[in-house]
Amino acid sequence: MSEITMYKGSSSGEILEEKVPAPEPKDTEALVRVTHSGICGSDLHFVHRDMVLGHEGAGIVEKVGPKAKSLKIGDRVGWGFQTGSCMNCPYCERGEEQYCPDRKTYGISWLNQGSYSTGAMWPEEFLFKIPESMPSEEAAPLMCAGASVFAPLLRGGVSSIDRVGIMGVGGLGHLAIQFAAKMGCEVVVLSRSPKKEEEARQLGATEFHVFAEGGGPPKTLESPIDHLLVTSAKQPDWKEVVEVMANGGTIHPITITMGELKFPYMSIIDKALHIQGSLPTSRPAHRDMLKFAARHGVKPILSTFPMTLEGVRQGLDALNQGKVRYRGVLVNQ
Amino acid sequence: MSEITMYKGSSSGEILEEKVPAPEPKDTEALVRVTHSGICGSDLHFVHRDMVLGHEGAGIVEKVGPKAKSLKIGDRVGWGFQTGSCMNCPYCERGEEQYCPDRKTYGISWLNQGSYSTGAMWPEEFLFKIPESMPSEEAAPLMCAGASVFAPLLRGGVSSIDRVGIMGVGGLGHLAIQFAAKMGCEVVVLSRSPKKEEEARQLGATEFHVFAEGGGPPKTLESPIDHLLVTSAKQPDWKEVVEVMANGGTIHPITITMGELKFPYMSIIDKALHIQGSLPTSRPAHRDMLKFAARHGVKPILSTFPMTLEGVRQGLDALNQGKVRYRGVLVNQ
Repeated sequence: MSEITMYKGSSSGEILEEKVPAPEPKDTEALVRVTHSGICGSDLHFVHRDMVLGHEGAGIVEKVGPKAKSLKIGDRVGWGFQTGSCMNCPYCERGEEQYCPDRKTYGISWLNQGSYSTGAMWPEEFLFKIPESMPSEEAAPLMCAGASVFAPLLRGGVSSIDRVGIMGVGGLGHLAIQFAAKMGCEVVVLSRSPKKEEEARQLGATEFHVFAEGGGPPKTLESPIDHLLVTSAKQPDWKEVVEVMANGGTIHPITITMGELKFPYMSIIDKALHIQGSLPTSRPAHRDMLKFAARHGVKPILSTFPMTLEGVRQGLDALNQGKVRYRGVLVNQ
Repeated sequence: MSEITMYKGSSSGEILEEKVPAPEPKDTEALVRVTHSGICGSDLHFVHRDMVLGHEGAGIVEKVGPKAKSLKIGDRVGWGFQTGSCMNCPYCERGEEQYCPDRKTYGISWLNQGSYSTGAMWPEEFLFKIPESMPSEEAAPLMCAGASVFAPLLRGGVSSIDRVGIMGVGGLGHLAIQFAAKMGCEVVVLSRSPKKEEEARQLGATEFHVFAEGGGPPKTLESPIDHLLVTSAKQPDWKEVVEVMANGGTIHPITITMGELKFPYMSIIDKALHIQGSLPTSRPAHRDMLKFAARHGVKPILSTFPMTLEGVRQGLDALNQGKVRYRGVLVNQ
């Protein structure tokens, strides 16, 4: 690989193709030939910026820097939202690099690289080996979508005896249902669309309830929810959400959206609700996620597009129009 | 005690005195001769209702019902915000009665009794023995104010190596400073008033910073806060609060106020902040709080008033005008 083809946003929002020479790995870096990239909803926030898109990469190591220890040429690896941290602050030292004040993340750092491309280079510390039984096209969407929903389920106080609500059956939600089900939880799916019931149940939902905005909390819901992962494309009406929650329950907002959270204040006090943010994810939890997914056969449902200028445009258009079932993946031929 | 004198709210907001015959304890109930009552900010929310005020009681058991097991005549006891629960739901079974859907709490249940009175009767399950070394006048404010700040410190994921912020030096805050300091935390006090610095440091503050609304986060704060207990009388500007928080940090809103929580949504995602409500408190944690306070000499600073119609009115007026340093207590002579 002497040259890399990359797909970038631009001020007009048009996707542009750019070719650059493949860089030479230094220190612990590894150059990865990208075979697959997930298409994430958050990419839509960046199409108007001059940056390489994509943060759900999977590929094969082509070259490693002189200090690389854990990776070798030929390894299948992936990466996600975060691609670096200082490795030396209290957060990094205790395995919570996602909180490092100097973390490197998509959309903020290293804008000249991304997974909508034929190659990328990162420190090996943030490249994760893909389990042998897991195809790379399935691994790619797990790198951000999978990690985003696994993190709160693993570290957010969820127990296998809890009723776990998943709001929104999409790129994140359809993975959250599978993870929560395989963790042994009661999985209560809340969706605007009754059409998604059959698929949600196949993925592992114990219950399915239609929860359309303005319709009030579903009357079919018999008992309240201990942990709710909100994965819908926009913020729900939090007053309605409060009504489905158990006292002492936790809401995990995962949706990326701007503006204010407007929440009925007293429910935090008199229902003792928690609103708990999380970031995808520490490196150990990321590895645990991949291992858990492989062991239990947690798989994204894919819509694939070729990794070409036309394919990237089609994939983003389909996502924008809500037509992807449930995660787009760009494939380098 | 054949008769009880009680102080009630009324639709006009005028405090009224009422005398009733002392009730006869049934089952596990115990009749308590009230010696002291804390005056809590939340009482101000109820002065316009036809209900007996007060939920920070301390006194002496005068009579017990036929099924009482743990209490006997002469025991010194207190009670707080919660005075009953079903004792048979999953929450009650696991020692989280504060989340019981059938919990009995101040302002909602048993409005014909309160601690602004000369006597009250509750199930012994919600009467807590006061440690021998603790004077009853100091115990009374711990029953709600103490429990309200101890609960998040004990159960809210706070560790003794954390930087714990206390916003607001008042009835709750001055106890939170002491508890957090005695737990070994770095205690970072944020107050609107520079005049409170000396006292805050005497109570155990490691740092003191002036944080006045609209002034932005204090420039003197060198490193961010892991857990912030918000005890100020009204909600702060959450955008400013976010700036003092560590990534992955937790905000504990304890202030009672109505309306909406308006929070910058993305900070929940990109700083992975938690907003964590809690209720005062499970029975085991309530007992732990009293024991911990006695062991470490955690003491409320008191302004006392006589438990008379005039005394109640004076105490509430002083509270309303922000003149109480730091907790009012009504004393039966």
